[in-house]
Amino acid sequence: MTNPTAAMLVIGDEILSGRTQDINTQFLANALTQAGINLVEVRVVSDDEGAIVGAVRALSKGFNHVFTSGGIGPTHDDITADCIAKAFGVHVGIRDDARALLATFYAARGIDFNDARKRMARIPDGAVLIDNPVSVAPGFTLENVHVLAGVPKVFQAMVTGVVATLTGGAPLLSKSVQINRPEGEIAGPLATLAADFPELSIGSYPFSLAGVFGANIVIRGIDSDMLERAAHRLDTLFGASQ
Amino acid sequence: MTNPTAAMLVIGDEILSGRTQDINTQFLANALTQAGINLVEVRVVSDDEGAIVGAVRALSKGFNHVFTSGGIGPTHDDITADCIAKAFGVHVGIRDDARALLATFYAARGIDFNDARKRMARIPDGAVLIDNPVSVAPGFTLENVHVLAGVPKVFQAMVTGVVATLTGGAPLLSKSVQINRPEGEIAGPLATLAADFPELSIGSYPFSLAGVFGANIVIRGIDSDMLERAAHRLDTLFGASQ
Repeated sequence: MTNPTAAMLVIGDEILSGRTQDINTQFLANALTQAGINLVEVRVVSDDEGAIVGAVRALSKGFNHVFTSGGIGPTHDDITADCIAKAFGVHVGIRDDARALLATFYAARGIDFNDARKRMARIPDGAVLIDNPVSVAPGFTLENVHVLAGVPKVFQAMVTGVVATLTGGAPLLSKSVQINRPEGEIAGPLATLAADFPELSIGSYPFSLAGVFGANIVIRGIDSDMLERAAHRLDTLFGASQ
Repeated sequence: MTNPTAAMLVIGDEILSGRTQDINTQFLANALTQAGINLVEVRVVSDDEGAIVGAVRALSKGFNHVFTSGGIGPTHDDITADCIAKAFGVHVGIRDDARALLATFYAARGIDFNDARKRMARIPDGAVLIDNPVSVAPGFTLENVHVLAGVPKVFQAMVTGVVATLTGGAPLLSKSVQINRPEGEIAGPLATLAADFPELSIGSYPFSLAGVFGANIVIRGIDSDMLERAAHRLDTLFGASQ
């Protein structure tokens, strides 16, 4: 496939400890799928400078785009901006445009724009700000890394804004076919089907519901005619209910 | 910290396309936290041999334990056993004990033990089988890599079985304190608190609910007295509701 590639880097001890269920990855995955950008890898690392810097460098080299979530707030554990700067070897400091955004926002609400809040204006040199329509504190893009907030509603707003600016490929289409027969029975013909449609990705996801064993067959690709032909073959093979 | 470390490798296109919300990571994270094993990194890769082999090698070198989920069923897209064998340079083939487990299971149910189902008995040389109390097809441990099913209820049963056999450290304790004040106001004193308790990890997770901005402060560590002292300091500082 020639679609651009992307990776996601989730920064957060709270995911790794089990306290919080990550839901940002799925939101990003859906947005990228619709935009014709292939999410190829996700990593979750802790709030640790070495881990973040290492992952940013590896993913930035390996993929066209990297999206990070988390660690851009005002508290001591928010170290993402510094880590991104370190990963690219650039200076990070409070930037005038980011400070102005925050100063205006807090002034309008009579809230003290203190040192902790000013930390949110720390932006690596050369970065482009990403609008935060929810709570103002901006994200930023440096090189091919898009640095977004971890709070889901802020993350989602930023993803929507950023992805709209990216050039994607053909949207990845998918068709899901539910087959109420166990995977072990359908695996042989399914493998043949997959071999006959090498340009499609055909995945089998087993389920059991109320004693019925079955599988959802998900066919993915960018050519809708080909997708339909493969789905029709599935239907013929297994009398599937779509 | 001297607790053993672990990484999770989720194998599955369905997570990366956004079709499926991964819930296995959080289950494993909680089980490891209770067992005193630190989950340090999670990766999600697609059903791609190069990606899986590369990730297995990197994580296996970097951490005491690696847990994988997905790709051990009977269909063509189930390539995990082959990838693990390749990562460690060992042979993989149908193994008698795994075949016997499956043969007995299917015979008792009058189900054809066909070639596709026999694929589930493919186990890399030198691996130890992991019991599957839900649907019999075993997982396995090779070196420090525990290979588990992707279907959540099977994954969960396997995690419970495997983690019980591992030697953990002191369980990581945590205390969560909700503070109904915005992060920007508490960040300064919170940083001082974190500096005063370097053996604890103190994270701040902002929220807004019905117009109230606040943060959940999560204090983690293995010393319960120290945890209590830090929580008490938080309480004194911010009059927190616990």
